[in-house]
Amino acid sequence: MDMWQAEKPQRSERVSLNKVRIQDDFWNYYINLVRDVVVPYQWEVLNDRMDGADPSGAVRNFRIAAGLEQGDFYGFVFQDTDVAKWLEAVSYMLEADRNPELEEIADQMIDIIGQAQQEDGYLDTYFIVKEPDKRWTNLTECHELYVAGHMIEAGVAYYRATGKRKLLDIVCRFADYIDTVFGTEPGKLAGYDGHQEIELALVKLYEVTQNERYLRLGRYFLDQRGQQPFFFEQELKKRNGKSFWSGFEEHVDLTYHQSHLPVRQQEKAAGHAVRLMYMLTGMADVAALTGDKSLFDACLKLWDNIVTKQMYITGGVGSTSHGEAFSFDYDLPNDTVYAETCASIGLIFFAHRMLKITPESKYADVMERALYNTVVGGMARDGKHFFYVNPLEVDPKACGGGNHKFDHVKPVRREWFGCACCPPNVARLLSSLGEYIYTVQDQTIYTHLYIGGEAELKVGGGTVALKQTTDYPWDGRIAIEVTPQSRQTDFTLALRLPDWCSDAELRVNGEPCPLDNRVMKNGYITVHRNWNARDIVELRLEMPVVRVHSHPLVRGNIGKVALQRGPFVYCLEQADNGENLHELVLPKTAELTARRVDGQLGSIMTIQAEALRLDEKKWNDALYSTAELPPMEQMTATFIPYYAWANRGEGEMTVWVREQQ
Amino acid sequence: MDMWQAEKPQRSERVSLNKVRIQDDFWNYYINLVRDVVVPYQWEVLNDRMDGADPSGAVRNFRIAAGLEQGDFYGFVFQDTDVAKWLEAVSYMLEADRNPELEEIADQMIDIIGQAQQEDGYLDTYFIVKEPDKRWTNLTECHELYVAGHMIEAGVAYYRATGKRKLLDIVCRFADYIDTVFGTEPGKLAGYDGHQEIELALVKLYEVTQNERYLRLGRYFLDQRGQQPFFFEQELKKRNGKSFWSGFEEHVDLTYHQSHLPVRQQEKAAGHAVRLMYMLTGMADVAALTGDKSLFDACLKLWDNIVTKQMYITGGVGSTSHGEAFSFDYDLPNDTVYAETCASIGLIFFAHRMLKITPESKYADVMERALYNTVVGGMARDGKHFFYVNPLEVDPKACGGGNHKFDHVKPVRREWFGCACCPPNVARLLSSLGEYIYTVQDQTIYTHLYIGGEAELKVGGGTVALKQTTDYPWDGRIAIEVTPQSRQTDFTLALRLPDWCSDAELRVNGEPCPLDNRVMKNGYITVHRNWNARDIVELRLEMPVVRVHSHPLVRGNIGKVALQRGPFVYCLEQADNGENLHELVLPKTAELTARRVDGQLGSIMTIQAEALRLDEKKWNDALYSTAELPPMEQMTATFIPYYAWANRGEGEMTVWVREQQ
Repeated sequence: MDMWQAEKPQRSERVSLNKVRIQDDFWNYYINLVRDVVVPYQWEVLNDRMDGADPSGAVRNFRIAAGLEQGDFYGFVFQDTDVAKWLEAVSYMLEADRNPELEEIADQMIDIIGQAQQEDGYLDTYFIVKEPDKRWTNLTECHELYVAGHMIEAGVAYYRATGKRKLLDIVCRFADYIDTVFGTEPGKLAGYDGHQEIELALVKLYEVTQNERYLRLGRYFLDQRGQQPFFFEQELKKRNGKSFWSGFEEHVDLTYHQSHLPVRQQEKAAGHAVRLMYMLTGMADVAALTGDKSLFDACLKLWDNIVTKQMYITGGVGSTSHGEAFSFDYDLPNDTVYAETCASIGLIFFAHRMLKITPESKYADVMERALYNTVVGGMARDGKHFFYVNPLEVDPKACGGGNHKFDHVKPVRREWFGCACCPPNVARLLSSLGEYIYTVQDQTIYTHLYIGGEAELKVGGGTVALKQTTDYPWDGRIAIEVTPQSRQTDFTLALRLPDWCSDAELRVNGEPCPLDNRVMKNGYITVHRNWNARDIVELRLEMPVVRVHSHPLVRGNIGKVALQRGPFVYCLEQADNGENLHELVLPKTAELTARRVDGQLGSIMTIQAEALRLDEKKWNDALYSTAELPPMEQMTATFIPYYAWANRGEGEMTVWVREQQ
Repeated sequence: MDMWQAEKPQRSERVSLNKVRIQDDFWNYYINLVRDVVVPYQWEVLNDRMDGADPSGAVRNFRIAAGLEQGDFYGFVFQDTDVAKWLEAVSYMLEADRNPELEEIADQMIDIIGQAQQEDGYLDTYFIVKEPDKRWTNLTECHELYVAGHMIEAGVAYYRATGKRKLLDIVCRFADYIDTVFGTEPGKLAGYDGHQEIELALVKLYEVTQNERYLRLGRYFLDQRGQQPFFFEQELKKRNGKSFWSGFEEHVDLTYHQSHLPVRQQEKAAGHAVRLMYMLTGMADVAALTGDKSLFDACLKLWDNIVTKQMYITGGVGSTSHGEAFSFDYDLPNDTVYAETCASIGLIFFAHRMLKITPESKYADVMERALYNTVVGGMARDGKHFFYVNPLEVDPKACGGGNHKFDHVKPVRREWFGCACCPPNVARLLSSLGEYIYTVQDQTIYTHLYIGGEAELKVGGGTVALKQTTDYPWDGRIAIEVTPQSRQTDFTLALRLPDWCSDAELRVNGEPCPLDNRVMKNGYITVHRNWNARDIVELRLEMPVVRVHSHPLVRGNIGKVALQRGPFVYCLEQADNGENLHELVLPKTAELTARRVDGQLGSIMTIQAEALRLDEKKWNDALYSTAELPPMEQMTATFIPYYAWANRGEGEMTVWVREQQ
């Protein structure tokens, strides 16, 4: 589908969160967790009122910058973003459900932010409090525009949620000021941020203000990135080669910052994974809103590289801890992996933006993969412990100093992090999950995710109410009740056929509909009709346990198999299967039985498999031996969904299991 | 065998190198390479006369310290050891074959060293030239006693080779001075070196001088190590926590330096591998010479931990680049391995010392394993390129920045190193190889290594000439002609039955001798008789290609097999088998055919195997797929001896190959 036949592609409008009400057994647990635990807990942390947690200083930094308190700046140079992401998550919660008490807290925080803002619109407490004369001297490392971007996202979200302009006005003033500082015109700084984020934020600001200045500025940051002479190198020279972090003379790693090439010339995902994901999200946005096909083509190329060569089966991205970065094609080690939770959230942002331009199921497939595996797995069932790194294979003996290449891998979720990007990112994603279920384009409502609840959507000039009922992700039966709310009743309902599903059935008001070529469009089952109130579309997605293999060039997975059922990737845990999981082998013919289990992990489907195990106790103790291997023993292996791992104490885990040849 | 029944064990005497003349097709190539290429090349490097090589400064540092030249110290704080190791290697060469020209060069160097030595005996050009007031202030990091140890080894070796006392006297004065500085007595420094080496060197100094002071000092360094309060921590406090290398405040990693526990309480190999090997060598020496059973027991315990839980099949040790160190039991990753060449040389030293105390074949087996695989593999066939790290699996795409966890792994040998410990270490080992073939204890000559040549050994008060003839390591037939040189003709000749050999035959003067329990002793075949001139002992060791498996707890090797023939571990290389070696599978029943090939790698035995390959070109391009795997294709895999890898350009290599279950 070439959306660029017209001068500018149509792009789906944002769906307001009060128009999509989630009522879903699986997701309500997590959304409530965010509302009842994560966001309140975060607020306490941000205010340094949490015993045991590392001090944050984030709110206090704003109070100091506002002149309300004396003291020194505390925390990372990007500490402000914790407050911004918290406000953004709160906004989504308020957009869905009004909550005057919470809104009052947010308003008070916004007042402080307003007081912290400088005369000229500048707003970054690190530089206001600590180094007022160093503004814009170290874009490479000091995250000023990244901080701005998160505050802009918060301002937009709060305005959308409450209609209140105060924070929006603050960030508009900040953005206006930034626009006077950056650009290729004489006297301006021809720079861009070391951590992309402001690009996508400026698009949002444009969306709510319709002020073209913000879109232009966002586009400028993308256009300028990677142009020669390299801004980060020039900046480093001006600082006499001194790094902010180490104080030493250093070279700047251009690839780490995706500034080694102009963005349109980047063909392989490289460098820091979160930075790339945020950049691509902004690129897709700007491409769509400006009709810039070359920018969109770059998105397509990088999308393709990521999902066909550099993505874990869990939707994790970033194969190396060194720079929290992509490495190279097919290099997907399961144990020394990075796969930061935030990077998968970024991948969801990017996929969502691509879906808004060209609704093809491949984007939603990846969105679902990242969401149901890495992202939801990033948070413990108590909402208070988080993974930053999401390994696909863990041996606790090797972590924590056993072998230092695993120093970044934690075998259990940790309570909070000094650099606390992941927990608030999970909060803002899950509290806005309603945005990701549907998009509307032309006369079609696209259903990307199967999540129970009600929605009111605008399509073809009219309005329609949808009611989705399902036990997804555990069961593949989905019913959608369609009720037009206006005289416009002629439109298409498109339902994604997931990549993991090879057999599906559709009924409309009980009548079977064949899923032939006329119906299938870009991976969606389309139902086009004149809709009547309470029409029922029923989709049955066969959800067997499937065996998945990797591309043979993925060295770490050769000879191995992973199990998947529906959107869930499964794993073996020591809690169910004992230690030394590498000793297990799954015969090719092993029967795989899914079974619903209610217990410590909630109500989940486990998979039982007849497996074989090489028991080291039968071995002769030699480190190397020419003796015959002892025969393998039969055992029943139990797999659980990957997202649920490490909720039962510390133990081994593996997604990929050896397969008998 | 409990050697400690007597108060003090008997310990084999050193065999002089002019009494063991190697005439061996395999080894002469390498020994000549050391003599004709490595040592001359090194001398040019040490004198900064080598274009293209990094400057060394090593000789110049001595000239500056001697007042013969003006200038600054250049190089590492332990740069002096390059000169010392060179002199040691030269000594071994001179001991075997007089060479007046080379001796003249060495004498001149020794003159300069003598002029560099300080009035009080101190000798370390870094501190003499650069920080004269900082002597003994940073034992942890600055290698002063390590430097002293290498100079002592050189002094001993040169005296043994030439009878000249000059360097020996220099190092005696240095050692005497050190003895006045260190000790637990009041006013002395209760310390020890950050890099063990002086312990084993002082034993050698004791051996040639018979001065008990040196043995006591060596023992002191071992006894004091790891005692509380920890010397390195106290020293760090005195330096206000400042590190030599980074200038930052740092904690000292006691385990890295094997100073976390008294040496007798250390039960698992931990920390920097070379340091541990040198320490254990010194421990075995001191234990034997002082009759210290607790020290010997510690050697046994650590030997056992190393060879049954932490040693690569190639005789490499050190599983992690972080600290060039041991990691934990059964953690033997093939790709992120360290396995420094010097660590395997240290393992050979340790094994050799254990053999001198208790001749059990298990020590010689490990010595052979390290020698024929990691050590000889550490040097290229041109004698000018060296491996520091010896991986068992390499993907060049992953090295050199592909994934930074492989930054320490080089896919081809490099010309020289800034920190040049390995090349001179290989040189001194290979030029003294004659020391490792035989030991004599009681009335028995033990033959540990099968290397052709002639030897004249003292046994039971008499002298005997041995002439070993063999095409080992390619062929398992060994003939030893025994000719007593004196009236004493009653002694035992013991021949090691290697651990890789399950079938052997012995003939004495053509008569078969059954290898029964009366003959087999601690892994040696013993032949006891009254020998006549030109008696011939013929040993035939069956040398089939064998399949080796790892202990099941070695995760990286599970489901994999390695091939070995004689002492050689084999590997697959891209040059013979194309890229993506991980796609190969060896069926359990695959026929394995050894074949002699003369070519670029010299005259070697290759192994051909009927293997299977999963060809990625038959795959559907998806990163993950539920499709059936394509059928594997038959192919002939060619294995070469591990030591010969990376002599045909850059390419993949693997020792462990997937085995069909």
